[in-house]
Amino acid sequence: MAASQTSLEEFYGREIILADRELVETGADQILKDADTEDIAFLVVGDVFGATTHTDLVIRARELGIKVEAIHNASVMNAVGACGLQLYQFGQTVSLVFFTDSWKPDSFYNKIMENRKIGLHTLLLLDIKVKEQSIENMARGRLIYEPPRYMDIATAASQLLEIEEIRNEQAYTPDTPCVAVSRLGSPTQTFKAGTLKELSQYDSGEPLHSLVMLGRQVHDLELEYLYQYVDNKEEFKKFVEKDQEFFKPPPYVPPEEDELNWEYSD
Amino acid sequence: MAASQTSLEEFYGREIILADRELVETGADQILKDADTEDIAFLVVGDVFGATTHTDLVIRARELGIKVEAIHNASVMNAVGACGLQLYQFGQTVSLVFFTDSWKPDSFYNKIMENRKIGLHTLLLLDIKVKEQSIENMARGRLIYEPPRYMDIATAASQLLEIEEIRNEQAYTPDTPCVAVSRLGSPTQTFKAGTLKELSQYDSGEPLHSLVMLGRQVHDLELEYLYQYVDNKEEFKKFVEKDQEFFKPPPYVPPEEDELNWEYSD
Repeated sequence: MAASQTSLEEFYGREIILADRELVETGADQILKDADTEDIAFLVVGDVFGATTHTDLVIRARELGIKVEAIHNASVMNAVGACGLQLYQFGQTVSLVFFTDSWKPDSFYNKIMENRKIGLHTLLLLDIKVKEQSIENMARGRLIYEPPRYMDIATAASQLLEIEEIRNEQAYTPDTPCVAVSRLGSPTQTFKAGTLKELSQYDSGEPLHSLVMLGRQVHDLELEYLYQYVDNKEEFKKFVEKDQEFFKPPPYVPPEEDELNWEYSD
Repeated sequence: MAASQTSLEEFYGREIILADRELVETGADQILKDADTEDIAFLVVGDVFGATTHTDLVIRARELGIKVEAIHNASVMNAVGACGLQLYQFGQTVSLVFFTDSWKPDSFYNKIMENRKIGLHTLLLLDIKVKEQSIENMARGRLIYEPPRYMDIATAASQLLEIEEIRNEQAYTPDTPCVAVSRLGSPTQTFKAGTLKELSQYDSGEPLHSLVMLGRQVHDLELEYLYQYVDNKEEFKKFVEKDQEFFKPPPYVPPEEDELNWEYSD
């Protein structure tokens, strides 16, 4: 995503056709044309199978008898380990889309709740709006695109807090510890750990960004790594400890004598 | 892992020192020696942060003021998407170790249960025993290593079934649909979908292998992709449908009139 079309063409020594979302979603026939006899490469950002559209493209190719070979790449789903949280401690990944005045989809809320109930971290992927039309232009059939928009950390954290305020089921709170992940894998990669409330005021700079919400199962080694990215180590530790009380399994209470022998009581 | 030391040395034009588990776990000082003034690269299989030992190495380097840069790579945690199941539908990843007569650790069971209760797929990483000593050789202090062992799909499935038979809490059953993932990312990569019981008799060939256990939330597109790897499409579909009944949320029942108006009742 950081490389220009020209530099990619120089690197590969071949012409490159930009495949935007429209082409990938509706132009599968065009992409697969002649791919049974010629070598056609389909370059993607991140991992090949990160998007259902790509899986769909493979299915179509196989139906046409076109041989497909995938060369895997790092993606945010595994590179996020760079923040110091262990990948096997992550639950399902969720997506956060830009709210509008009338549209505030909150399906992520239940998913975060599910992850947090079993103590797992949640990777939140933040909305990217590229080549989007305004409703007016779409209605008038004008192919004029809005400038690209990338959700930043402050917006993501604010939207999360807005939904918690409405639902109030404490899937998370303003004090829940999170990690802001900015420009992952690039030379200006930055991490910032803090509470959700703190991050709602964080200036995360240039895109792209992701957010990780911590789960209860955070290990000492993970925490030690995160301390590099906090303003105040002691304070952050307190928030982590406080957060660990959420969804904590109840302490073990040994059964009463008569409960153990209930089969024999009358 | 597929490349030889010589071919890697030719590729990089530099001498390569093999860092086995022993060196990485106990020889951090040796690896980090002079790394503050010289360029030292630490090559890993899969993603850099897939192992806690690597995270630990970064922490030690930073404590010594050594600048660290990570170049991300694909790992099983994201490349597994090649089987057709969507990465955002995966829960926590679990590990399965070789059972012995007296040692059958089953901590994976609760984790699979947690994933399956919320409908998610589970990636199971299978044990690799390389440069392991026998108990006798270890006791006698002899550095003689056993031949390497890699858990295959049949062993993994059998161990899973053995634990289910003991615990009998139906985190999964012999009929639970799974996907065998063999030699992921290599030219002989193979997938096989079937029930756990079927896979306990599956010959998965050369290592490495992983196993994916399906969750209830399987999408039609995912299922369509898996059909490529099943013996009998209709039968597999039936097992998937049967499995979807496990941990299914109870059907919605509209509240009784008087429950809705409880605030006004006396």
